[in-house]
Amino acid sequence: MTLPLGYRYAALYAGIRKDSRDDVGLICSDQPAAAAAVFTTNVVQAAPVTLARKHLRASGGKVAAILVNAGNANCATRTGDAVALASAKAVAKALKTKTKYVLPASTGVIGVELDRKLLTNAVPKLVTALSPINFEGVAKAMMTTDLRMKTAFEVVNFRGGSVRVAGMTKGSGMIHPNMATTLGFVLTDAVVPSKVLGRILSAATARSYNSLSVDGDMSTNDVVALLANGASKVKIGRKELTPFAEAVTRVMESLAEQIAADGEGARKLIIIRTTGFRTDEEARQVARSIANSALVKTAIAGSDPNWGRILAAAGYSGVQFDPRKVTVLLQDVRVCQGGLAVDMDEAALKTKLDANRVTIDLRVEKGGPGSARFFTCDLTEGYIEINGSYRT
Amino acid sequence: MTLPLGYRYAALYAGIRKDSRDDVGLICSDQPAAAAAVFTTNVVQAAPVTLARKHLRASGGKVAAILVNAGNANCATRTGDAVALASAKAVAKALKTKTKYVLPASTGVIGVELDRKLLTNAVPKLVTALSPINFEGVAKAMMTTDLRMKTAFEVVNFRGGSVRVAGMTKGSGMIHPNMATTLGFVLTDAVVPSKVLGRILSAATARSYNSLSVDGDMSTNDVVALLANGASKVKIGRKELTPFAEAVTRVMESLAEQIAADGEGARKLIIIRTTGFRTDEEARQVARSIANSALVKTAIAGSDPNWGRILAAAGYSGVQFDPRKVTVLLQDVRVCQGGLAVDMDEAALKTKLDANRVTIDLRVEKGGPGSARFFTCDLTEGYIEINGSYRT
Repeated sequence: MTLPLGYRYAALYAGIRKDSRDDVGLICSDQPAAAAAVFTTNVVQAAPVTLARKHLRASGGKVAAILVNAGNANCATRTGDAVALASAKAVAKALKTKTKYVLPASTGVIGVELDRKLLTNAVPKLVTALSPINFEGVAKAMMTTDLRMKTAFEVVNFRGGSVRVAGMTKGSGMIHPNMATTLGFVLTDAVVPSKVLGRILSAATARSYNSLSVDGDMSTNDVVALLANGASKVKIGRKELTPFAEAVTRVMESLAEQIAADGEGARKLIIIRTTGFRTDEEARQVARSIANSALVKTAIAGSDPNWGRILAAAGYSGVQFDPRKVTVLLQDVRVCQGGLAVDMDEAALKTKLDANRVTIDLRVEKGGPGSARFFTCDLTEGYIEINGSYRT
Repeated sequence: MTLPLGYRYAALYAGIRKDSRDDVGLICSDQPAAAAAVFTTNVVQAAPVTLARKHLRASGGKVAAILVNAGNANCATRTGDAVALASAKAVAKALKTKTKYVLPASTGVIGVELDRKLLTNAVPKLVTALSPINFEGVAKAMMTTDLRMKTAFEVVNFRGGSVRVAGMTKGSGMIHPNMATTLGFVLTDAVVPSKVLGRILSAATARSYNSLSVDGDMSTNDVVALLANGASKVKIGRKELTPFAEAVTRVMESLAEQIAADGEGARKLIIIRTTGFRTDEEARQVARSIANSALVKTAIAGSDPNWGRILAAAGYSGVQFDPRKVTVLLQDVRVCQGGLAVDMDEAALKTKLDANRVTIDLRVEKGGPGSARFFTCDLTEGYIEINGSYRT
């Protein structure tokens, strides 16, 4: 675990959530970092999402600090915009930077007013507590129903020196409390203009956060931000671009995989690979349809090699393909070929499906070059328990 | 319960399913009936679906008999086409009618060969057993994980006489065994040309079977057929069309509602009503998004008045609307107005949500004329139990 240079971190309990786990976190860069972000496409958007988008536009892609809280999404609230703005102003004042360089982010219950003082009172304490190594403190403070903290790290060595990429994320069920949020923050000390960061983030998001589904619900608060503060002095030019972008993608793929593995109630990570489609986008659409199928997810929970459900979910994805050319593998065991059943040792395969990591491959033989990889988890009684009784 | 004239019914156990409940049913019309049908749009289609479609085209919309079996979907099988054709030929021979007048339908496990002799041997016995009153026998024979038989009846009185509409359906989880099927057969003794039946069926399907979701999965075997044998001698002309179409729609809405109420593991029927959208289709898209949300379905299971999840599911439906104009009612209690929380007695509402029938209303105030009604059910531990261990 090698942290990027030039960032500091703090976390504490501000009284927003009921139990006394840390619920606010601050990430700050010693110099305003070049930045890019992707936001939820939900029609309903939380106040911090609206403000973060506005700040990023006003600053021309510069971020000096990220203020994150758990326990309240600050969404569908009367005072939401004012609270988000007051918290950003408090951070700017305490760090002696501009308000537009502050990115607010919230996760938690929807429709409950967030007391602004809980946030603004916490800010000076957070600034005092800033440390160059408390990365995990922030990663923990933004957890909601997550059972495990989720971080990923990469170092890329160039002739001119090394750059570091560190990511943290949260969001176990896309749900909790009222429905939860995916937040992802990826930090690097490379020198990269924000426009280039935007392109890298967009491509990496397609292969990671947009290839991930726990329950198919999309939050009002989702944000993934990528910051590059240049503290390593290593410039990402044309030569360095591919290995750097690959490192960012690996970090984000790891974060997405960790979210799926920690899906609410999940016992198994499911990795779906689709190949032989016309385009990557079509392959992803098929993989998403399989990932969102409650039937597939319950079958995997029960270690049931039920490829008919997989074929059927691919069939209603909206993508055209010839079912007679389809091969399906479960845990690398061929269960369907030419769209028909393959003789196999079902008892042995059931044992293989008891693993906590299950792969599903669906191939259209002699098809196109489009392929995708998608992460999800099994659907168990635990999901129902967590989500059927949250507010009670 | 008044059955339409001129139809006969039979059911028996042919050895297709493991337990010895009836698994084949035959409906026959004394005279070939005008007919229309809607079929699954899944890319993967079962052999009986392909053959039924072909027969309906070849006959110009005439059906003399429907042969249905449970326990095996005859889908993704090597011999599927031959088995479906052999069974239709057996029915045609025994009833002295044309093969193209026979509509085959199957529901059950995918990817397992269906022994043609089980079907062809059953056919003469079915024909011998035909009775004008054994409507419920067929409705029971096609049940899979359904806990309740599903039928609905209407009588429409015209000046020239009465016509009867009777419907039967199955499909509790869209799932079972490997994933199951919605089959619906609606019979009437009115005199209606098949083209008119097609238009009536299409509109009624939009408001019933296409406004229904248990788990969002779509079967390879879905068929809904509407037959009119004219035995009442009452012609449906321009004057009679609306009341007749309304009766067919009521029967189909009742069948769809019964499917949702009997969803696998369901304890509660959920009726979602959306209004104030630009078109009915947009309203239906929003309602479908809410109905497919695992978060909404688990919240209702837990009697949790969690309107944030409803608003968020509407928000990612793909339909544009102003969230600040949204009102949400649960069991007719206002919980969200102008996109914000409304003060309410949460304990009292929780008690109301314990009912086995829950209504969700989402209105865009001062919006367009588009509205929809959609049926689904809550998501409980029972669903996971049923679907996680089917083949074990």
